[in-house]
Amino acid sequence: MATRKVNRAGRSRIVKRSGMRIARLSSAGYAYAFGDDAWVTSTDLGLQTRSLESVASALPLIRSGLTGTTTPAVAANRRYECPVTPGGSILGIGLNYHSHIKETGRAVPSEPSAFGKLGNALSGPFDDIIVPTAVTTQVDYECELAVVVGRPAHRLTPANALSVVLGYCVANDVTARDLQQRHSQVTLSKSIDTFCPMGPYITTADEIADPQDLQLRTYVNGELRQDSSTRDMVFSVADLISRISASITLRPGDVILTGTPAGVGFAMNPATYLADGDVVRCEIEGLGHIENRVVFG
Amino acid sequence: MATRKVNRAGRSRIVKRSGMRIARLSSAGYAYAFGDDAWVTSTDLGLQTRSLESVASALPLIRSGLTGTTTPAVAANRRYECPVTPGGSILGIGLNYHSHIKETGRAVPSEPSAFGKLGNALSGPFDDIIVPTAVTTQVDYECELAVVVGRPAHRLTPANALSVVLGYCVANDVTARDLQQRHSQVTLSKSIDTFCPMGPYITTADEIADPQDLQLRTYVNGELRQDSSTRDMVFSVADLISRISASITLRPGDVILTGTPAGVGFAMNPATYLADGDVVRCEIEGLGHIENRVVFG
Repeated sequence: MATRKVNRAGRSRIVKRSGMRIARLSSAGYAYAFGDDAWVTSTDLGLQTRSLESVASALPLIRSGLTGTTTPAVAANRRYECPVTPGGSILGIGLNYHSHIKETGRAVPSEPSAFGKLGNALSGPFDDIIVPTAVTTQVDYECELAVVVGRPAHRLTPANALSVVLGYCVANDVTARDLQQRHSQVTLSKSIDTFCPMGPYITTADEIADPQDLQLRTYVNGELRQDSSTRDMVFSVADLISRISASITLRPGDVILTGTPAGVGFAMNPATYLADGDVVRCEIEGLGHIENRVVFG
Repeated sequence: MATRKVNRAGRSRIVKRSGMRIARLSSAGYAYAFGDDAWVTSTDLGLQTRSLESVASALPLIRSGLTGTTTPAVAANRRYECPVTPGGSILGIGLNYHSHIKETGRAVPSEPSAFGKLGNALSGPFDDIIVPTAVTTQVDYECELAVVVGRPAHRLTPANALSVVLGYCVANDVTARDLQQRHSQVTLSKSIDTFCPMGPYITTADEIADPQDLQLRTYVNGELRQDSSTRDMVFSVADLISRISASITLRPGDVILTGTPAGVGFAMNPATYLADGDVVRCEIEGLGHIENRVVFG
């Protein structure tokens, strides 16, 4: 498959289109497509891919199998599931956008502030965010660029760090602000079941010309709340991978949530938390959107 | 198999011995034994057990297969590997022993303080602790009772919480104190590769009469540093599982590190960190010991 692209000098050229989307569909498992083409599943390609790690290692096979395949499209009523399977580490980065640091009144960190978000929180891109009201009533959204690791990463430099990225997707780092205020460590406030919707699919890294030039937007019931660019990050994606991998070996299927920009509910005046029935939509340029209804349970 | 036990009234009785050890041996995978009997592997029993989750679900089969087996012992030169496979969540609990809270000068928490420790840190019970000196030079030990979850746990009460415990083992929640001081979140300081040695095997829960009555000891080069009992915990194992599972579904293979007692190196006067070549031994009554050499790399 090929697409026409205009380079900086203004000349157009034909390029091999290698950028791909990786989705996980209900009852069908991992599925692949170039752009908006029909989904082709692992089964269609004769592959067994139970985890994102196995997808990452089979990527060249998938790419070549996908080119020119005539397999019929996956039934349209298949539901998107979370493209990341539990089992990898999820590292969240706090205070990584200048605009968000400003609205919280905190200082710009000299090193990335990272926390673990637990795998039980992973949820589909269009699944409900279920709020256990016995535990929290102050739930907030955080639209974030999720970086999905595709190859083992140890002691990388910023210059070679992006080579281990499988792709990117949209995440909502849902946070219980009341728990976050009460605890010095944020893991509990960010790891409640369903508090990490992600998707709708992973867009492979070669499709994204510059991860530091993507617009992020969050809407609550259609009202624009976050509207920023990944240009505003304190530590770039390459920086984060390089610094983390200095002591932590990142593995295929691991995810880095790269922080959220200004516009979160708790920084509004007055602070405004998600209510039962609210619909939160997070979108990132080139990566699609996720949309989740809030259900008080 | 049967063992003679003396109950509190002083009468002895014959009980069916169901308590078991679960190890992971190099090149042999999961292996099982009653007490100090010879190890019998999953392969010997005709089972496929790639992860601790599959061990947990096959436990009744393993128990019955193990009773009266005549399989020869696993070769003695097999190395113990970490009995917990990466893929589950590792939840650490801070400030959970009164004696440790006192030595840090902090207040007794009203709720458990939990943090995520990442799976890349998992390491074998006798493997080296490798210190990346470009990142940290103030590395400290924390001997902890590790609770391994064997069944899905959601909204449990303290009364039924222990029913989901597969078993217990010894862990060293190795911590880079310099990173811990610099960061508000402790995940990076506690998730360095090899900073979570664990083992030597999992002792199943039915073997441990009371998880709140176990002595823990840490030795550095033979010098006793920590010597305390799980009686000193602020939140008991049952309490921790109950409180965490109120909003976080624990899954088979997940681990809770239940905090460390007094005697850590950074609370000594002067503060004393682990040096290249030091040997750290952590032991817990009834669960065996782990022993790890510190290697500056």
